[in-house]
Parts: sequence; C-alpha cells; structure tokens
Amino acid sequence: MEQVSTWRSHGGTQGVYNHQSKSTGYPMTFSVFVPDHDPGTKLPVLFFLSGLTCTHANVTEKGEFRAACAEHGIAFVAPDTSPRGDEVPDAEGYDFGKGAGFYVDATEAPWAANFRMRSYIEQELPELLAEQFPVDLNRQGITGHSMGGHGALTIALRNPDRFRSVSAFAPIVSPLNCPWGEKALAGYLGPDKAAWLEYDACALIENGARIPDLLVDQGEGDAFLAEQLKTHLLTDACAKAGQPATIRLQPGYDHSYYFISTFMAEHVAWHARRLALSHVQAHLA
Amino acid sequence: MEQVSTWRSHGGTQGVYNHQSKSTGYPMTFSVFVPDHDPGTKLPVLFFLSGLTCTHANVTEKGEFRAACAEHGIAFVAPDTSPRGDEVPDAEGYDFGKGAGFYVDATEAPWAANFRMRSYIEQELPELLAEQFPVDLNRQGITGHSMGGHGALTIALRNPDRFRSVSAFAPIVSPLNCPWGEKALAGYLGPDKAAWLEYDACALIENGARIPDLLVDQGEGDAFLAEQLKTHLLTDACAKAGQPATIRLQPGYDHSYYFISTFMAEHVAWHARRLALSHVQAHLA
Repeated sequence: MEQVSTWRSHGGTQGVYNHQSKSTGYPMTFSVFVPDHDPGTKLPVLFFLSGLTCTHANVTEKGEFRAACAEHGIAFVAPDTSPRGDEVPDAEGYDFGKGAGFYVDATEAPWAANFRMRSYIEQELPELLAEQFPVDLNRQGITGHSMGGHGALTIALRNPDRFRSVSAFAPIVSPLNCPWGEKALAGYLGPDKAAWLEYDACALIENGARIPDLLVDQGEGDAFLAEQLKTHLLTDACAKAGQPATIRLQPGYDHSYYFISTFMAEHVAWHARRLALSHVQAHLA
Repeated sequence: MEQVSTWRSHGGTQGVYNHQSKSTGYPMTFSVFVPDHDPGTKLPVLFFLSGLTCTHANVTEKGEFRAACAEHGIAFVAPDTSPRGDEVPDAEGYDFGKGAGFYVDATEAPWAANFRMRSYIEQELPELLAEQFPVDLNRQGITGHSMGGHGALTIALRNPDRFRSVSAFAPIVSPLNCPWGEKALAGYLGPDKAAWLEYDACALIENGARIPDLLVDQGEGDAFLAEQLKTHLLTDACAKAGQPATIRLQPGYDHSYYFISTFMAEHVAWHARRLALSHVQAHLA
C-alpha cells in the first residue's frame, strides 16, 4: 500500500492511499480519515460507497464527515467506484463501466476479470484496512450515496453479521426496477434476472434478508427520484417484511453533495450509537 | 443579477449568481448562502475572500460553513478573486492576473481598467447584496484565506465602521514583505511603495488603523508560512501597536481546505458573537 497524501484535518488525519488490488487486477485508490485516538486503541469504521462517476475524492472533499467522525471517534473509508486505468474496459455513458461498478462481481465479458467491486468491498478492502489502520472490524458500519447507497444496502443485507449499522443517501433501492440498474446488471451479470436478485435491496428483503434497522434520507427535489431511485419500493418492501427502517423524505433537497453534507452528521451519529452499542454488547457477552 | 444555480443545503439556500460589474467591467460570479429565516427579517452577513487561483466555488464546495451559518443565522458571501473572461488581461503564473486580484484597485496598465477588486468588495458587492438578499449591512463580518485573508484584514482595517468582526485563515499579513505581495503590488500599483501601504495589514496597523479585535488561524505545517505568510509580522505589529488580536498557530495543519474547514465553525461562531453584540448595541443606542 502506498500513501498518496495526508492532511491534518478536524483533529485527525485524512489520507489517500493506493494499492494493487487482487480483486480488480488494477491499482485502487481510497481515502481514510482516522481521528486522533489513544495509542493501541482500535476505532469503529464507517464505509462510504460513492455514486456514479465518483471517485474517493468527491465525499472526501465535499462530504463534511470529518467533524462528526472526530467527535464520535470513527474512522471513515471512501473507496473508488470501479477499477481505473487506460487498459480497464469501459463503455459509452456515465452509468456503466468506469465509475459505475455497481458493487457487483461481474460475470459477463469483458467485465468479469476486473469489475469485482463486491469482492473488493466485502473482502479485500477490510482485510487491508485491518492490516494498515487502527480499525476494529468487529465494529463496521456502511453507508453510501445513490449507486453507493444501493451498494451499502445490498452489502449489509448479505452480510448481517458484519455490519452493525447501515444507512444510505438517496439510494437506488431496486436496480431490477430502474434504467440505471437494468443496464448495469444486464451488462455485468447477463440477462438472467435470477442472478440480479442478490444485488437488489428490495429483492433481498423480500427474500428474507434482515438487518436490525436502516436509515435512509432522500431529497424530494431529487431529479432521479421518480425514474431511478424509487424510494417507495424500499419503504413498501420494509413494511411488508417487517424490516425496521427509518426512511425520510427531505423537502427541497436534490441529489448533490449539498444534500449529502446536510445529513452527514446525523448519519455518522446514527452509526456511532449502534457501533458503540455493539462494543458494549461484545464486552458483556 | 442572474441566478446561476441554487441548492437546498443545511436548512438554507446555497446559490450562485452572476452580474455585470461596474467596478471590473466584466460579469462577476459569487455565491451566497442564506439560512432559513422569518420573512421580513434581515440577516448578518459574513464575507469570505478566497485565495490565489480560487473562484467562489472552492469555499462553497469545501469550506464546511453552512452548518455553522445556519445555526447562527448568518448569510455567507463568497466572491471571485478577479475578473474573468477571455478578454481580461492575464499574466504567466498563478500568482498574478486572473485569480490573483489581491483585493486592490490597480493603477498600472493593462490592469487598471478591470482589476478593481477593492471597489468591487468595498462598494459594489454590498450594495448589490442589500438590493437582492435579506442581509443587514449594519452587521457585516469579513474573513478570508491566504490572499483573501490579506483582503479581509486590509479591507477591515480601512473600514472599521463597516465591519463588526474580522478573521482570517493563513493570511498574507504583509505583501510588502513577501514574494507574492511584491510581485502583485508592483504589477498592479507600480514601483512606488508608498502606494502599497494601504494594502498591507501590518503597515496599516503600524500607521494607526485599529479594529476592536481580530482572529487568525495559521497552520504550522503550511508550506507557505516561512516565505509568504509570515504570521509573526502580524503578531509583532499587533503587540507593538496594542491592537487586540487572537493569532493561533495550529500544529500540523497545512494551507488547504482541510485546514480551513477544520476551523470554519469556530470562525463563524466568532463572527456570530460580535455581529449579535453589535445588533444589541445598535438597539440600545
């Protein structure tokens, strides 16, 4: 792992790092914020999965998470959204290929060799973090925005023992039922929709996946709400399945980082309460 | 005035606006954050002057000021750092010409016609704000970063009746005594250093200018500290003149927005206390 840059910020260290990924076959860049802490202690860690076109840099520069993470003593990790580089396959459009990995392990050519963001986020990245950073993998939370909100919800629903807290900003809640999702899942996984089900938060819940609770904020002024995000599908799926969920519609807010940054501190606090509680429970057990 | 874009953010409206400036002869872009407020009320307003190369966008995206401004009910205005456009004169280097107006009224050709950022900030912009936004010009504060910290300090020192609060992040404290300042003031004002004195915070203080107090944060890890910023010159000038000042060196912090955003909320609170106090005093008077 190579350190690209570090900055002192909000009483902690904001770093950007690069490593050769086994999952994707290419170098991957990610950022980590580590609040100051007592030597030898390990911190709970919150993953933020970004949306279409984004790299680690968008939330790192504009997410306004550091003050809250420093207050609560939480490390914050922001991976990229796909492999990058001239030799990585790509496609026309911003919504497929580079910058649009959709947190799946692709099975279709030419994507299958490199577009393995599920394995990268679920296995490789946490192992690297545990080796290189003072983080406690028994206290992981996950959140994300748009395509990354889809990633956060689906990864959490498939790994309920790993994540103690889950939230999302303006997530794609059902890739099976929107143009972005249909294009991406067909492209990465092929036409058989049975293979798509584990990459759809609503389908996972309908098929029995459960987590203790989840938090979603969605701007009512979001231009992608009606056609792509369809928050009501998640609300309905949770209600029907008895999946606890706090899903909030925020009047006037759009899909931008001006929206994300507004509710970031509340999300960090939401995760902090659950990660702290899991710590107490682990010690009592 | 044209509205370029607006976003809902942090319980207020973040907008970007464009207008034809009389001072500079070109269209100028600026951003304004207006927290939600009771109809008919006018808000105190904090100006943020940006540093070399920046536009309104840098602090608007990365400054992390909106939460604090919403909490305290303060409007936040971020102007550009020079006139822009293909026909505007420019020079080699990032530190002179476009993006480097240094908040002076230039007197040398070819700059004198358009590089009039002093008049723009001191006169034209506040008049426009009073016409177009719910701001109270009896409660103005000013801050800025680097070249913009120089702008904030010098504009405040020349206009003690206008600004109720003054602060700066990593300011150029004495353009007469650093390469950035020498290049810019010679270029815009000519070789006679007598004309530079009103654009130098330390010289203004030495020559009798006074404000109630000022706040400066400066990163000790700032790569520009020793050669360009020279914070100690301001500390010495204030001490010698009896000018009240809180000048803080912050270990490890550099010159970036990771530094600015860390201390932004404290600066907004500093301004808020003084702007609120001036309001009480005005009502008692």
